[in-house]
Amino acid sequence: MSSRLFQCAPNLSEGRNPQLFSAVQQAMQGMPGVAMTDLSMDHDHHRMVVSLLGQADGLREAVLRLFEIASQNIDLSKHAGVHPRIGAVDVVPFVPLGSTPMEAAQAVALSTAQEVAARFELPVLLYEYSARNPAHRNLPDLRRQGLQERLLENAPDFGPVQLHPRLGATVMGARKPLVAFNVVLESQDLALAREIAKFLRGLPSVRSLGLWLESQRRVQVSINLTDPERVDLEEVFSHVSEQAALRGVAVHSSELIGMAPAASFVKMARTRLKMLTVQPGQLLEWNLLNQESLYER
Amino acid sequence: MSSRLFQCAPNLSEGRNPQLFSAVQQAMQGMPGVAMTDLSMDHDHHRMVVSLLGQADGLREAVLRLFEIASQNIDLSKHAGVHPRIGAVDVVPFVPLGSTPMEAAQAVALSTAQEVAARFELPVLLYEYSARNPAHRNLPDLRRQGLQERLLENAPDFGPVQLHPRLGATVMGARKPLVAFNVVLESQDLALAREIAKFLRGLPSVRSLGLWLESQRRVQVSINLTDPERVDLEEVFSHVSEQAALRGVAVHSSELIGMAPAASFVKMARTRLKMLTVQPGQLLEWNLLNQESLYER
Repeated sequence: MSSRLFQCAPNLSEGRNPQLFSAVQQAMQGMPGVAMTDLSMDHDHHRMVVSLLGQADGLREAVLRLFEIASQNIDLSKHAGVHPRIGAVDVVPFVPLGSTPMEAAQAVALSTAQEVAARFELPVLLYEYSARNPAHRNLPDLRRQGLQERLLENAPDFGPVQLHPRLGATVMGARKPLVAFNVVLESQDLALAREIAKFLRGLPSVRSLGLWLESQRRVQVSINLTDPERVDLEEVFSHVSEQAALRGVAVHSSELIGMAPAASFVKMARTRLKMLTVQPGQLLEWNLLNQESLYER
Repeated sequence: MSSRLFQCAPNLSEGRNPQLFSAVQQAMQGMPGVAMTDLSMDHDHHRMVVSLLGQADGLREAVLRLFEIASQNIDLSKHAGVHPRIGAVDVVPFVPLGSTPMEAAQAVALSTAQEVAARFELPVLLYEYSARNPAHRNLPDLRRQGLQERLLENAPDFGPVQLHPRLGATVMGARKPLVAFNVVLESQDLALAREIAKFLRGLPSVRSLGLWLESQRRVQVSINLTDPERVDLEEVFSHVSEQAALRGVAVHSSELIGMAPAASFVKMARTRLKMLTVQPGQLLEWNLLNQESLYER
């Protein structure tokens, strides 16, 4: 592909305000060079995930615009949700697509982080492939309690060492694709959901939490697949189903948050349709990312 | 998308010659502006399906190159396979992708058809969205016995009214995406495969045949989905499994020939993973076809 393309998935800590949802929708639809491909809001997680695709300049502008909207609408000090969080704009990952190198994602994450910290006066921590401080690399570590104390020990990469009173802090960086996938159980037993989440954490490249969904009065196993080619949707779903069934509990439903690469679905065809030899490249759209020659004349 | 992109899937009536497979592979890899995204060869069908993506000029050149290779290597008069066929290069569909209009696919099909007929002196029939003669619109109709007789009644769109001695005739045209999908049964009962194929033909937008696979000594239900958003892989697979199970027969395996759009797989997630609200747009690569703004600066 001749132009460098990225996915960017800012997570905002607000999942209960339909006006904010509309405001984000409108603002993102007007951004040149950026496509908002999904927007999801969850009441219980109290979280919004904005899925963007685009080139570096457009995405940087889109993220700055989201910070403006967040600074006018979100007060983290009054926030309560089941999902762990650090800031009003909680985390902003940049993912290189196709032949775009990771270094290009690092560059756009860095320039965006600098500008956000300066303009909004809040601490920004660089994580994953952008981490300068090894203690900042892993998001679940950053989300543990006591961020303010840890900021005093380990300075943020940009901005003040004090959490912003309404916006908290922000984690930003380049990373590989990640699939966010939740499985809801026909059960109110939070201990059960946590047990299954713990079981899943025994698999490679899987992060998982057991959560209570007040709006549904059911429990949820909330899952991140950090290497979806290794452990995919089909595999974790089967594990959750089996583990729940062992305890006499059925799966109610599942949901994909934001976007997932096509390959996550192709593996399912191998198992469920006994499609023994199917390759990701047989997914028409997969090739649009991976065949550079298509866009050169 | 700023440049007009097409899929093109020439079907060659030769599925038993590994040297031809290599020759096609090499030739297509050298074509500028064209990506060969899949190449499949089937012994029993005696057929090769070349999956190409690219812009108009590159694809026209690629198709001409395939005719050259076919004219040097295939003699249809000595051909035997279970798949119905008309020519050495049997059918050449052009599918507009993303925002590319059907008219653009009609234009490249037309210019390619004219050039092929003139250069290789064989009858070319325009089908589907390119059909000028309603009797040529539907491929299964063209494949019924007696093509030579029917050419004398209904002249081909280009080229002579006489079938080429080695290359036969060629069907070419613009069409919508089509998914080619085969399900192999743990059975040698061809009547059973034909019964299931007949059952499937009762579904909208499904074409199906029961075939004998000598190489596996099993029967196959060979399926074309002409509107995969309407009836998808998951749905036909379930029907075949159920119909076979009613007769005490299991499914051995399935295979996708060439490429399928991502949406074919997303519906499976809805059923199999109970992913109630998943949208095709949540497939990362889907958006690369459908978000024009990504490629504009």
